[in-house]
Amino acid sequence: MKLLPACILVISLFQTLSAQNSDSTIISQIYSNALTSRQSYANLVEICEKAPGRLVGSHASEEAIRLFARQLKDAGADTVYRQEYYAGSWQCLGTAKVVAMGKAGADTLHAVALGPSVGTPEDGIQAKVIEVYSPESLDSLDPALIKDKIVFFNKPMNNSFLMTGRAYGDAISQRIWGASKASEYGARAVLIRSLGIEIDDYPHTGVTIYKEGVRKIPALALSTYDAEKLSALLREQPRTEVWMHLTTITHDSVLTCNLVAEIRGTTEPEKVILVGGHMDSWHNTAGAHDDAAGCVQSIDVLRIFRELDIRPRHTLRAVLFMDEEISQTGAKEYARIVGVEGTPHLLAIESDAGGFLPLGFSVQANDTVVARLAELGGVLKEYGIYTIAKGHSGVDIEPLAQYGIPLIGLNTNGQRYFEIHHAAFDTPEMVGRREMQLGTAGMASLIFLIDTYGVE
Amino acid sequence: MKLLPACILVISLFQTLSAQNSDSTIISQIYSNALTSRQSYANLVEICEKAPGRLVGSHASEEAIRLFARQLKDAGADTVYRQEYYAGSWQCLGTAKVVAMGKAGADTLHAVALGPSVGTPEDGIQAKVIEVYSPESLDSLDPALIKDKIVFFNKPMNNSFLMTGRAYGDAISQRIWGASKASEYGARAVLIRSLGIEIDDYPHTGVTIYKEGVRKIPALALSTYDAEKLSALLREQPRTEVWMHLTTITHDSVLTCNLVAEIRGTTEPEKVILVGGHMDSWHNTAGAHDDAAGCVQSIDVLRIFRELDIRPRHTLRAVLFMDEEISQTGAKEYARIVGVEGTPHLLAIESDAGGFLPLGFSVQANDTVVARLAELGGVLKEYGIYTIAKGHSGVDIEPLAQYGIPLIGLNTNGQRYFEIHHAAFDTPEMVGRREMQLGTAGMASLIFLIDTYGVE
Repeated sequence: MKLLPACILVISLFQTLSAQNSDSTIISQIYSNALTSRQSYANLVEICEKAPGRLVGSHASEEAIRLFARQLKDAGADTVYRQEYYAGSWQCLGTAKVVAMGKAGADTLHAVALGPSVGTPEDGIQAKVIEVYSPESLDSLDPALIKDKIVFFNKPMNNSFLMTGRAYGDAISQRIWGASKASEYGARAVLIRSLGIEIDDYPHTGVTIYKEGVRKIPALALSTYDAEKLSALLREQPRTEVWMHLTTITHDSVLTCNLVAEIRGTTEPEKVILVGGHMDSWHNTAGAHDDAAGCVQSIDVLRIFRELDIRPRHTLRAVLFMDEEISQTGAKEYARIVGVEGTPHLLAIESDAGGFLPLGFSVQANDTVVARLAELGGVLKEYGIYTIAKGHSGVDIEPLAQYGIPLIGLNTNGQRYFEIHHAAFDTPEMVGRREMQLGTAGMASLIFLIDTYGVE
Repeated sequence: MKLLPACILVISLFQTLSAQNSDSTIISQIYSNALTSRQSYANLVEICEKAPGRLVGSHASEEAIRLFARQLKDAGADTVYRQEYYAGSWQCLGTAKVVAMGKAGADTLHAVALGPSVGTPEDGIQAKVIEVYSPESLDSLDPALIKDKIVFFNKPMNNSFLMTGRAYGDAISQRIWGASKASEYGARAVLIRSLGIEIDDYPHTGVTIYKEGVRKIPALALSTYDAEKLSALLREQPRTEVWMHLTTITHDSVLTCNLVAEIRGTTEPEKVILVGGHMDSWHNTAGAHDDAAGCVQSIDVLRIFRELDIRPRHTLRAVLFMDEEISQTGAKEYARIVGVEGTPHLLAIESDAGGFLPLGFSVQANDTVVARLAELGGVLKEYGIYTIAKGHSGVDIEPLAQYGIPLIGLNTNGQRYFEIHHAAFDTPEMVGRREMQLGTAGMASLIFLIDTYGVE
C-alpha cells in the first residue's frame, strides 16, 4: 500500500515530463515550420500590391476581402464565411493639396487627409495660419486670432520616451480633437503635424473626431519635415497664407463584412479560441504592418496547425475584422453576434502592433489568468517572448471584454512603428519575413498551450 | 560606541542608495540624449552616401577616413589621430557579369565578386556547370566531372534556425573554401549561392580564401533567386553553359589607417576603455549596418559623454578599424601597437552586429568578469538589454584577447541581418535611427558603469 502513492507519483511525474517534452517538441516544430515557410509573406505582398488603401467600403476593401477569404481557404480552414453588416464609409478622392504661399513663391507641402475629414469648397480654402502646440492652448488665445484662420497644430512626438507608443499617446490629442476645438473658435481648417517619430516627407493620417454640434472643417496632416518648414516660414513671414484643397465623400450605409474561418475543435468544438487582425488600412498606405501582417499571421496560425496536424480541442477561429481604423464597426458587430449567439470563447488574441520582432504578450484579464498565462508561456522565453504581463490587448477584440473573455495582444518591437504607421512607407519591404513569422509562431505556440492546458 | 557602526551602516547604505540613484539618473539621461539626437544617423547617411564601397585601399575608404575623422572631432574628442600602416588591397573594377546560356536564350544573373577573387581572362570564361551542395561533396564525385567546369555551390541558409548567425555559420564553408576545393579538382571558376536568408535579387559578397599552392580561380556569388533559377535550368538542361566576366586588381602595399579618438580620463588616464567598429565595407554596398552603424555609434558614445559632461576616470577611446572585411589588418595593427606600447585596457567593446535593436552583450572574458558585468549591467534590463552572458565579442577587438583584456560585443536582433549583409540592400533606410541609438545608449551606459565600478 505504501508503494502505490509513490508509484502514482512516478507515473504522474513521468506523464508530466513526457507531456512537457512533447510540448517543447511541438513548439519547436511550430517555430521551425513558421520560419521556413514563405506563404504568409507572399500573402502579405499580395494584399499590399492588389488592395492598398482598403478603408471600409472602398473597392480595395472588397478586393482584400476576396483575397483574404481565398488565403484562409488555402490555409486549410474547415469553414470560411463572411459576417456581413452595414457600415458608414468615408473616402478621400484624388490627392490632398496644401500650398504655402510664401514671398519666395508657392511651396507644395506633403499632406494627407485625416479621416473622416470633410472636403474643402471646389476652389479650396486660402487663409492665414496660426501655429499652436495643442488643442488646449487655443483656450488661452484671443479668439479673434483664430477666427477664419487655418490652425496649425505642431506638437512633435517626444523621442525621449523609450516606448514609442507612449510618445504617440502623448501627441495624439491634436489629431483627434484639433479640428473640433479649432472649429469652436471659428477656424476654417486645420493642419496637424504628422504623428511620425522621424523627420521626413511622409505624411501620416489617422482619425479625427468631430464633436457633436461643431461645424465640420477640413483636417489634414503635414509630413514632419514640412511641418518644420511651415513653422520656420511662419516665424519669418507670419502673414503667410496657405491654400488647401481636398475632396472627400461619405456614404451612410455600405455592405461590408468581417471574415471568419475555423478549424473545428475535437473535444470542445463549441468553445472558441480566436486569433485575429484587421483587414482595412488607411487610404494612403499599403498597410503592410498595419495590419495586413496581423491578418496573414492569423491565417498562418491555421496553416501551421493543419500542416503539423495539431488538432485543437477547442475550435480555432481566425477573425479578420473590418473598419478598425475609423469606426471599429467590425469589432462591434463581431461582439454583438457573440452576445446574441452566446458563443463561448476560451480567449482571443490580436496582432495589431505590426509584424516586427515579437517581444511578449500583454493580457487583459484578471490577475489569476494573467499569472496562469505568464506561467504557461514561460517556455517561450527561449524564443524571445520575454514578457507576458497585464496590459492592453487590441482594439478589435476589446469589445469582448464585456463577456469576461481573456484578451491578449501580441507585443512587438515598436521602435520603427511610428516611422511607417498610417503612412505610405508602410510597405512589405519594411516587414521582415522572419520577424513576422516569429510573431505567428509565438501566437500559435501560446494557443497550443492554452488549448491543451486551459487558462485557469 | 554602539551607535557608531549603525551610523556607519546608515551612511554607507545612504551612499550606496544615492550612488545607485544617481547612476540610474545618468543612465536615463544617456538614453534620453541618445534617443532625441539625430547627429549619429546624419553621420551614418553621410558615410553611406559619400563613401559607399569603402574596401581598404579604395578611394572611398580614403573619403570615409576623412569624414569619420571630422565626425570624431565634431563629437568633442580631445584628440583624433590616424594610426597609419601598409596593407594589401583588392578592388573589383566594373561589374561582374554572369550569363546562363540556356536554349531559350542568354539570361543575365545577378552576381557579385567574392573578395579577393582573381578576375577572368579578358574574353571571360565559358564552361559547363556542375551543381553541388558543399565543398566536401566534391570529394565523392568523379574528378572528370569537375575538371574544366564551373562549380556551382548551392547550399541554402537554413531558415529553421532561430538565430540567423547559426544559419550563416552552417552555410559559410562554400563561400570560404569552395574556390580552393574546386580548383584542386581542376575547375575553371566557381559560383556560390549568396549567403542571403531570403529569396531575392541581391547578391551577397564576402571572403573566399585561396589555400596556399592552389591555382586561383574566379569566385562569384549569385543572388538566391538566380541560384534557384540556375539550378532549375540545370535540372532541365544539364549541358547549359555559363559565361562569366570579372575584372579585379590587387596591390601589395597601400597606405591606410585606423582612426583613434579620445576623451582623456580624469583619475586613471593611462588606462583605456575602447569602443569601436570598422570603417571598411564591401565594394557592392553602402555598408550601413556593416559597419557604418558601429562606427557612428562609437563616435556618438563620445558625443554623449561630452554633452552630458560625464567625465570618465579612464580614457575613453573610440577606435575605427580598417579592413575588417578582408584581412583584418587594422585589428592586427592596433593589437600590435598595444603590445609594443603596453597600453593597459580596462575593456574593449565592439559594435559589428548591425544597428538593429540591441538585446544584450556577449562577453569574452573569464567567468568572474562575465558574472561581474552581468551584475553591473542588470540595471539595463528595463531598457531591453535582456542578456549579458559569455560569448563571442567582435573580429576587430579579438586580437586583444592575447593581453587578457575583457572583450564585449553588442548583440542585436539579427532576424533581418542576412537580408542585407554584404549586399546592396544594406542602406541607411534599413537602419532604424532609434534602434541604432538604443545600441549607442546601451554601450555608453555599460561603459559608464564599468568606468565607475570596474570590471572585477
